[in-house]
Amino acid sequence: MQLYLAGPDVFLPNPLEVARLKQQICQTYGFTGLFPFDTSLDLANLPPFEQGMAIYRSNIALMDRCQLIVANMTPFRGPSMDVGTAFEMGYMAAQGKPVFGYSNDGRLYAERVTGNAGLDPDGLSIEAFEMADNLMLEGAIAASSGCLIRAQAAAYYTSLQAFEAVVKTAAERLLA
Amino acid sequence: MQLYLAGPDVFLPNPLEVARLKQQICQTYGFTGLFPFDTSLDLANLPPFEQGMAIYRSNIALMDRCQLIVANMTPFRGPSMDVGTAFEMGYMAAQGKPVFGYSNDGRLYAERVTGNAGLDPDGLSIEAFEMADNLMLEGAIAASSGCLIRAQAAAYYTSLQAFEAVVKTAAERLLA
Repeated sequence: MQLYLAGPDVFLPNPLEVARLKQQICQTYGFTGLFPFDTSLDLANLPPFEQGMAIYRSNIALMDRCQLIVANMTPFRGPSMDVGTAFEMGYMAAQGKPVFGYSNDGRLYAERVTGNAGLDPDGLSIEAFEMADNLMLEGAIAASSGCLIRAQAAAYYTSLQAFEAVVKTAAERLLA
Repeated sequence: MQLYLAGPDVFLPNPLEVARLKQQICQTYGFTGLFPFDTSLDLANLPPFEQGMAIYRSNIALMDRCQLIVANMTPFRGPSMDVGTAFEMGYMAAQGKPVFGYSNDGRLYAERVTGNAGLDPDGLSIEAFEMADNLMLEGAIAASSGCLIRAQAAAYYTSLQAFEAVVKTAAERLLA
């Protein structure tokens, strides 16, 4: 069973090393992990926008080959997760595929956003549904046979402990 | 033709007023706009997590009734757009429905993220594909018959000028 490895890990200094570590964990539990860097794209002669489009099409094709997604939902450049990964969770949810997620931030969304009386400094309301992030994300996980595992990790962007726990749970639910 | 009105507008102090204004613009151009607050849900007796799940299911049902999405991609609590809206763009893209978007921030993503030599302060690389946000989002728009309109608006969270321009373009492409 092929598993899509979604997350901002692609922006780390060593994405191929992260891919290898995640793929090893997948293999341990019986999955084949597909990482957005798997495909060798020849982007050298393309203008920037077309490079982005080629990666988009490649990621879509990878997702279409996978039966489930495990998303790195660790907050990225703000209180919420990476938006590209959120898009991918929606893409997989629409296909009825199980959505799993993990976060290296143990807190709930409302605990991360600074506010007063439920409003942020701009006066916009802060979601407080005892969820880790926007309700569409945790909603998709709970509505599928997925799960979300949160753990406050010192290695915020790179710890794979919560990731491994999610992959283990996915194997128990989908490969048993 | 029914159009899903996605965006962090639901967090504004007056979401129903925003819904009314957006729906009026939709009607002007021949669409019926469905706003996530359309459905009257009875949430009073539910615990917070179950409230979130009820809204999730309601939003999914609204999206399933719509033939296209117009997403408010204005950055929200960080350099990127609202993650719930990003999820919804992925959900609609997976169904082959046209994805349209607008932003009240005229800048490209790489212009908004503070960095040095292509890296953010944490050492993670900053996407620079001459796109407004993560490539999956603008990729989905360009890969469908959608469009993205950006305009630097003084009323950052509430201006509807770029929104109206997108709805007009959607009408020209889909209702002609």
